[in-house]
Amino acid sequence: MKVLGIDPGNYSTGFCIMSSQGSAYRVETSGVIKAKKRPENLKLIFEELGKLIQTHLPEEIALESAFYGKNPQSLLRLGEVRGVVLLLSSIYQIPVFEYTPQKVKNSITGYGWSRKDDILLMVNKVLGLKTDSYDEADAVAVAFCHLSSRRLKIG
Amino acid sequence: MKVLGIDPGNYSTGFCIMSSQGSAYRVETSGVIKAKKRPENLKLIFEELGKLIQTHLPEEIALESAFYGKNPQSLLRLGEVRGVVLLLSSIYQIPVFEYTPQKVKNSITGYGWSRKDDILLMVNKVLGLKTDSYDEADAVAVAFCHLSSRRLKIG
Repeated sequence: MKVLGIDPGNYSTGFCIMSSQGSAYRVETSGVIKAKKRPENLKLIFEELGKLIQTHLPEEIALESAFYGKNPQSLLRLGEVRGVVLLLSSIYQIPVFEYTPQKVKNSITGYGWSRKDDILLMVNKVLGLKTDSYDEADAVAVAFCHLSSRRLKIG
Repeated sequence: MKVLGIDPGNYSTGFCIMSSQGSAYRVETSGVIKAKKRPENLKLIFEELGKLIQTHLPEEIALESAFYGKNPQSLLRLGEVRGVVLLLSSIYQIPVFEYTPQKVKNSITGYGWSRKDDILLMVNKVLGLKTDSYDEADAVAVAFCHLSSRRLKIG
């Protein structure tokens, strides 16, 4: 099973391609797409994620769901980034699964209200990465959350 | 000057291609893109508006801005539709102009808090249309708002 994990953000969108075989998880690639200016950021996300999908052929997409406590304008802008991700899922016919931030945190640290530094530490430890980007770590964590909860469901 | 007016919505997105020559305004085409299911609705909007842009070559896009009183989930979903519109604007390098609902209403009826029926009536009267769709009428109104406010600026 191969998944594309995404942590969509207004200024920075984390991504991760992760594959699993039994209880072994491997990060094929991960990183961050950064662009401050709208609407060019949306084109960049569309192009970069599109290339990633064409190269790695993920079977599913795992997305961190929005935190509704955000202010209306942030929520609208986050929706714009999500729109591009969902458009890609429809173009390439890849089903999308959403996970709350609490569920994502819980899957990687065992605690749903972990701090960003703890996520980073555990992502690097569990997946053997050396990233210092919170957004990249969140994308890895949501991919891990998806693959590990699937395994639990099937097993 | 030719503009693509858009009234983005969660279930129904109105569009209008309007051209102006001096004080004469002409609707080349207008209509509504309807799709209830996500994320297929986003793909449909992307494809239909893309075809419209390629066929009519609008020089600018006029968009009705979001009403922030909406609930968070509606706002997020509206953001998704807006994301697809802004992506197209970036792909085809067409600048986007936003207008508040009050400004759009005021430009076509002379009153910023008009009811939907009044917009419909005035759009049909001023532009010689025969639509009964509020979303189509809103898209026509935002295109008219853009072209008429441009004319005021220049003149």
